Amino acid sequence: MPPPPHSHLFRSQTLTPLLRLRPSSNSSPPPLWRPRRHLSACASAARLADPLAAAGSATPQQPVLGVEEAVVGFVTGKRKATEVAHAVWRSVVQKGDTVVDATCGNGNDTLALLKMVADERRQGCVYGMDIQESAIESTSSFLQMAINDGHERELVKLFSICHSRMEEIVPKDSPVRLVAFNLGYLPGGDKTVITVPRTTELALQAASRILSSGGLISVLVYIGHPGGRDELDVVESFASSLPIDTWVSCKLQMVNRPIAPVLILLNKK
Amino acid sequence: MPPPPHSHLFRSQTLTPLLRLRPSSNSSPPPLWRPRRHLSACASAARLADPLAAAGSATPQQPVLGVEEAVVGFVTGKRKATEVAHAVWRSVVQKGDTVVDATCGNGNDTLALLKMVADERRQGCVYGMDIQESAIESTSSFLQMAINDGHERELVKLFSICHSRMEEIVPKDSPVRLVAFNLGYLPGGDKTVITVPRTTELALQAASRILSSGGLISVLVYIGHPGGRDELDVVESFASSLPIDTWVSCKLQMVNRPIAPVLILLNKK
Repeated sequence: MPPPPHSHLFRSQTLTPLLRLRPSSNSSPPPLWRPRRHLSACASAARLADPLAAAGSATPQQPVLGVEEAVVGFVTGKRKATEVAHAVWRSVVQKGDTVVDATCGNGNDTLALLKMVADERRQGCVYGMDIQESAIESTSSFLQMAINDGHERELVKLFSICHSRMEEIVPKDSPVRLVAFNLGYLPGGDKTVITVPRTTELALQAASRILSSGGLISVLVYIGHPGGRDELDVVESFASSLPIDTWVSCKLQMVNRPIAPVLILLNKK
Repeated sequence: MPPPPHSHLFRSQTLTPLLRLRPSSNSSPPPLWRPRRHLSACASAARLADPLAAAGSATPQQPVLGVEEAVVGFVTGKRKATEVAHAVWRSVVQKGDTVVDATCGNGNDTLALLKMVADERRQGCVYGMDIQESAIESTSSFLQMAINDGHERELVKLFSICHSRMEEIVPKDSPVRLVAFNLGYLPGGDKTVITVPRTTELALQAASRILSSGGLISVLVYIGHPGGRDELDVVESFASSLPIDTWVSCKLQMVNRPIAPVLILLNKK
């Protein structure tokens, strides 16, 4: 189903050349690497210096956070919701899995997911998408910088497409272990271009269809910007509507920080 | 401040002989052990057979859950909110600590807390209270059955008193690491006697005063009974009102199970 034409998400939609429709499972499309570009202003010096740490991946200086450290850190104000999300992903995702980053943004989640699925036989796969071409370019540059191994980079397939259309790019016979959403605007980008309730709802429905049994939909909802709370309402409504015999929907949030992001996790039994 | 006389909590209040007011820190009152009684109907056969497991404590057959297993289990529908709570408590509470069980009920939390604080020198302490004398009796019987070591049992001080008056029983110079609430009615008991918003609010205020820096208030709110949602509103309002420079308030809940208990954790920085 095509998304509604009035959506903000489609202001900058570019279907070519970054989009490759319905690759067959036997011949995955080549990754959409562009010549290296400068990162956008949002890429801080720290991120440039240590992209793996920025993505929550292990570095020699910073070990990967476990769920215990992330959750206890969250409860005590030392860790962010995104670190809890990454830690939970790591407990669900296995090497060789197929996963989806529904909102690439600047590529932090994409890189973290790549590190979770890339195995020695290079059979894992990350399908990344973002409606903003600038986000895909930022993600592409970021991954080029962070990953030296060209074969590993090929495990990422990037598409400039609305997340509501994820079924068009993920092969039908690929069991998907995780679909990750990071809702809001592109950090450092155009803040008027935001994910919006209608297409987010369609994207969640699509994610629920492609997810395999035992898989997880992870939604981090930023609510500090105009429209953020409306989007949270839609996500919560969707999460609440999932039948309890086949889904577990839970929510983790700060209570005395009204604009702190909310983490919603949807597990398909 | 005495609680309001109209509160449901005071229907069965008994100040003597179970209550001992303001014990000095140098001479802790002896535990209020009564002759062993039969447990109430709520004590299932399984609970009788394996009280440590029922309380979430380690047994030879069932190791203690870590935060990772509890949280991932919660997200995937295999673990309960109370198991997450216990796992988080274990990461905060240390041997030798003073902790408070503000709602003893049938004693499961009291026993779990005792196992966390009891050290070889027997310096830990659990102050347990419940407005219902039958709950204190049930807790007392349960602990007698579960703990063979009489010295260890002496680390528990039980009081039949409203939780809003916890400051009257915890010595002023005892730094308190954890105050645990399990809000609702006594399982297996009189369901018309429930914790109610007004005294729960007073109890949370008292807990926030006696808690030491780095300590945790843990509130598991059961909302499936009449009045449960009103009480959740009060707890959430209290949690939201805590200043962000000195408190971290967070909430974990199921979204597609409307009457599932809600876990609220308040960390004092």
